Amino acid sequence: MPFDYLKPLLQTSTNKIVLLVMDGLGGLPIEPGGPTELEAASTPNMDRLAVEGTLGQTIPIRSGITPGSGPAHLALFGYDPLVYDIGRGALSASGVGMEIKKGDIAARGNFCTLDDQGNIVDRRAGRISSEEALPLVERLNHIEVPGVEIEVRQVKEYRFTIVMRSDGLHADLEDSDPQRTGVPPLAVIAETPEAEPTAALFNQWISETRNVLADQPKANALTLRGFATHPGLPSYQEAYGLRAACVAVYPMYRGVSRLVGMEVIEFDGESPIDEFRAVERNWNDYDFFFVHIKKTDSKGEDGDFAGKVKVIESVDAAIPALLELKPDVLIITGDHSTPASLRTHSWHPVPFLLWAPATGLPDDQTQFGERACAKGALGSFSALDSMPLALAHALRLNKYGA
Amino acid sequence: MPFDYLKPLLQTSTNKIVLLVMDGLGGLPIEPGGPTELEAASTPNMDRLAVEGTLGQTIPIRSGITPGSGPAHLALFGYDPLVYDIGRGALSASGVGMEIKKGDIAARGNFCTLDDQGNIVDRRAGRISSEEALPLVERLNHIEVPGVEIEVRQVKEYRFTIVMRSDGLHADLEDSDPQRTGVPPLAVIAETPEAEPTAALFNQWISETRNVLADQPKANALTLRGFATHPGLPSYQEAYGLRAACVAVYPMYRGVSRLVGMEVIEFDGESPIDEFRAVERNWNDYDFFFVHIKKTDSKGEDGDFAGKVKVIESVDAAIPALLELKPDVLIITGDHSTPASLRTHSWHPVPFLLWAPATGLPDDQTQFGERACAKGALGSFSALDSMPLALAHALRLNKYGA
Repeated sequence: MPFDYLKPLLQTSTNKIVLLVMDGLGGLPIEPGGPTELEAASTPNMDRLAVEGTLGQTIPIRSGITPGSGPAHLALFGYDPLVYDIGRGALSASGVGMEIKKGDIAARGNFCTLDDQGNIVDRRAGRISSEEALPLVERLNHIEVPGVEIEVRQVKEYRFTIVMRSDGLHADLEDSDPQRTGVPPLAVIAETPEAEPTAALFNQWISETRNVLADQPKANALTLRGFATHPGLPSYQEAYGLRAACVAVYPMYRGVSRLVGMEVIEFDGESPIDEFRAVERNWNDYDFFFVHIKKTDSKGEDGDFAGKVKVIESVDAAIPALLELKPDVLIITGDHSTPASLRTHSWHPVPFLLWAPATGLPDDQTQFGERACAKGALGSFSALDSMPLALAHALRLNKYGA
Repeated sequence: MPFDYLKPLLQTSTNKIVLLVMDGLGGLPIEPGGPTELEAASTPNMDRLAVEGTLGQTIPIRSGITPGSGPAHLALFGYDPLVYDIGRGALSASGVGMEIKKGDIAARGNFCTLDDQGNIVDRRAGRISSEEALPLVERLNHIEVPGVEIEVRQVKEYRFTIVMRSDGLHADLEDSDPQRTGVPPLAVIAETPEAEPTAALFNQWISETRNVLADQPKANALTLRGFATHPGLPSYQEAYGLRAACVAVYPMYRGVSRLVGMEVIEFDGESPIDEFRAVERNWNDYDFFFVHIKKTDSKGEDGDFAGKVKVIESVDAAIPALLELKPDVLIITGDHSTPASLRTHSWHPVPFLLWAPATGLPDDQTQFGERACAKGALGSFSALDSMPLALAHALRLNKYGA
């Protein structure tokens, strides 16, 4: 349980919390003395919130550690990723809305192309389209392996997720994806003796898939990787007493939210204002809203400084719609940094803005940006402290001790 | 032991440390853009110390956690309250000067009023005066239970503390106070099998008290709660090599000081200057002085912003008396925040001023206040680090490693 000491302190409240995460928000200057993406962006709304609120910067995992998206979000949600290890398979399955229970085994799958000798020539089956792949996923769903229930669901293009359900399954399995071409797919190998029956079941299923896919020019085989079961995370309801909702466009973020017990809200569109309107429509049904903006990260990974600035500005322009809802606590931050100059995730501290009009202590900072956040009154702190801070400012925690 | 790594480093020194705690010091503005209580107060002496010293802000327990007074003081003293749990009975008994050793069982008691059916009609016995209650406490002290020593001491009005001493006692006991009227007092029930004999002894004592109090119109019965033994804290002498003294008006703070091995100094009066004069009279006998100012917290809890400002100003006006003693290290801080705007303890970081003329590094801050402390050179840090900082600046710690 994250923060065991919090649970006895939880008190009922109708105060609402919004956690707005711009993925990969933190950045770097592209020229000496220049601004970062966030500093370069024109963000009048967030700057006003900086005046009225309190700034700081978070260390996502530990100093110097560059997080993947899964661990970075877990940390923001208050679950130490060094304690709670979520397998990619479980994340992926949750992301496409498959239910995984403790003991179910999930894995990520790729269609691939084998040559006549059975060696992989294309690990992504010529990147076949989602339309081409869907009927093949259907075929896979008709394969039966006695004693287990198997469900396959399409992710996108050549990618799918598989979940195997039964009693006594174990996830200590090695990937069948050799991560290179010119060799055949590997057998699924058990890493522990207890996992051997599970490995045999997956290998039996894989062998059936060969018959089912034999007529395919591109997707005539598949590989599996990232075997995992449900990581046993306590839910937001258990840990924080919050009815929590996720508003996110991308499956991966919906997945990690589902794993911590958030309900995923369906909505049309994918712009910031579409996401904020989805929050508005569901405002009365939840205590906590996690809103995820993906494109800050995507532009950072593209090395597109100006593009990332524009995404940040588009979020800022939509902020008034969020403020109209009068959240009691609004946090605007990122899960990690993705500086356009580095074209990848990085370990740099992440800008953090806490706005809680009734309970916050405004500091002297007047702009939402990396350098202002480094001087903010919240100081530098672990991303793990984000939820306790949010709960406290929402007056959802009683006093510890007398 | 707090800070196991400190003990081998302790070195003898005659340098003196004063820890001045204004209870609930941290505050919030009462109007947008306005100052906090500490910022609003005219504090020329503390501002001069801020110029010459170093500022920072402490997290009392953990981020977002609002501490009670006991845990908050333990943390300042260097004992992690999540590790060292002090029962209220032990705190209360220490507070009225009763000695509690490991294995002794202390509890808090209330006189109460029962009706003819034996149900509680007043949980506080009509709030009888201390004068009315004192002879009843005397009567309780004449009750004998074979095999154990029992001592009862008056706290105030209807409240008292009881300590039972013998071998083999256990404190895993449920309160006999049902916390409501219309029902009889509960029996003391053991939470573990080992505590059953102790429960029986307390129930035997309670049954005797009924006879002794039978003639009373108001205080004809009593309830017990908060059973606890000595929490086994290592003393200041053991942990830090310090002869430590407590100068405090309120029993609760004297109690927690006694539990960490401080000697409690008796003195007349209750103004800051009375407390500082008590320090002066005992200056040569101790290495460390904990001086506690209660009224900052009381005014905060009353929602009295101006009153809290005045208390802070009265402390500031008395500071020269403390400086005349030429302490080597003077720390001025709070145990937690009690913003008048919230009328209760809060989780906000606490202003911290470290003045060590021979060893400190002055920062750029020129006023003692929340926003200045947030920008101070000590940064944000756990209150648990206060004692190591004090010891270091008093040159009481040797080098770690060669």
